Amino acid sequence: MMVDRSQLAEEDHPADDVEPAERLRADARENRTRIVEVARELFASEGIDVPMKVIARRAEVGMATLYRRFPTRQDLLAEVFTEQFAECATILETALAEPDPWTGLCAGVRGLTAMQAADHGFGAAFVQELPNTAVVQEKLEQGMHGFRQLVDRAQASGQLRPDVTFADLTLVLMANSGVVGHAGHLAPAASERLVAHLLNSFGTNAVERTPLPASVEISLPRVVFPDSG
Amino acid sequence: MMVDRSQLAEEDHPADDVEPAERLRADARENRTRIVEVARELFASEGIDVPMKVIARRAEVGMATLYRRFPTRQDLLAEVFTEQFAECATILETALAEPDPWTGLCAGVRGLTAMQAADHGFGAAFVQELPNTAVVQEKLEQGMHGFRQLVDRAQASGQLRPDVTFADLTLVLMANSGVVGHAGHLAPAASERLVAHLLNSFGTNAVERTPLPASVEISLPRVVFPDSG
Repeated sequence: MMVDRSQLAEEDHPADDVEPAERLRADARENRTRIVEVARELFASEGIDVPMKVIARRAEVGMATLYRRFPTRQDLLAEVFTEQFAECATILETALAEPDPWTGLCAGVRGLTAMQAADHGFGAAFVQELPNTAVVQEKLEQGMHGFRQLVDRAQASGQLRPDVTFADLTLVLMANSGVVGHAGHLAPAASERLVAHLLNSFGTNAVERTPLPASVEISLPRVVFPDSG
Repeated sequence: MMVDRSQLAEEDHPADDVEPAERLRADARENRTRIVEVARELFASEGIDVPMKVIARRAEVGMATLYRRFPTRQDLLAEVFTEQFAECATILETALAEPDPWTGLCAGVRGLTAMQAADHGFGAAFVQELPNTAVVQEKLEQGMHGFRQLVDRAQASGQLRPDVTFADLTLVLMANSGVVGHAGHLAPAASERLVAHLLNSFGTNAVERTPLPASVEISLPRVVFPDSG
């Protein structure tokens, strides 16, 4: 999936016939897309400190090209996180579209924490290292607004404990980042278990409890000594 | 509190009168005690990567003295963590002495997580960086044994959900380390709130729920941008 040629095909222009200027633009677009894809993968697998050199090599572009597209690491991070924020926005929209407020709240919490668990780079960044730009601030505001609505709805319906606050969401995300950071490949299952416990505490008696997902057998010594096998 | 002179006083030996060899031994003991105290404080406030040089300077001993007492950082860590394990052991003993199994389990969980919250170096080490020595392994085994008893007792009494496992304790400690790592000076209060939610989920209907401790207002943007004030 190097470049989207569908538009060219539609216009009946085989790639070889396009004019040099257009071809250049297509190459540039293709490079940009590949850089962002590679960066997202590497931020997720290696963390957001992965060297720019490694990103350039994996994306098969020169450092000059990389820096022409993204003058600083922050620019690249911002681009990648714009995609992540879009994913968050979709999760929250879907959750708000749920007719049952409790189901909606649970979907929102499960969706965001599952993103943290699936994507180590994003998980870390989500609670600490996002570039502090106007765009990021705005997206964060939007996300918080959506989440506040989920909380308010579920409290109005009597399904969410009245003493659970919006700040408890921050608590969930911080706690989940600890589990994700320590549980290795078991992160998604351990994260699900944690979230199930927290939602158990959040719901009132009006809410039917679902069984906990399976317990994740991470022994304490294995967490304490990750390299001892 | 540089040296414990109570024993000298008891034997009616004012410090000035002791023999040179004894005085040397007393100085050595004093140095050792001060190094361990300083190291514990610095591990807690700065994390366990604090340079040996900084520890020596703060303890007002030369590097040679420091290395004579503790040839490697691991030796110093082990000494400090021996004290921490003793504190854990006391918490677990007290918890097991509780006649009510649920009260005992809650005391154990709250005690260990409060230690994590109070002591950043220990919190980090507890889930990742303990020196992997025979002594540490043994203490860890003892601690786990105590905790297993707390879990078994509370399950036998019907107060702890039957589907809560010993592995959920690891989950609590991992989650708490995330909260402690991100909540800054609010760590103790945020940790208490997290633990209250988790214990809420752990208890059966046979358990009377206590009100949640106050919600801790850590806004998501403040966690995401810790330096933005």
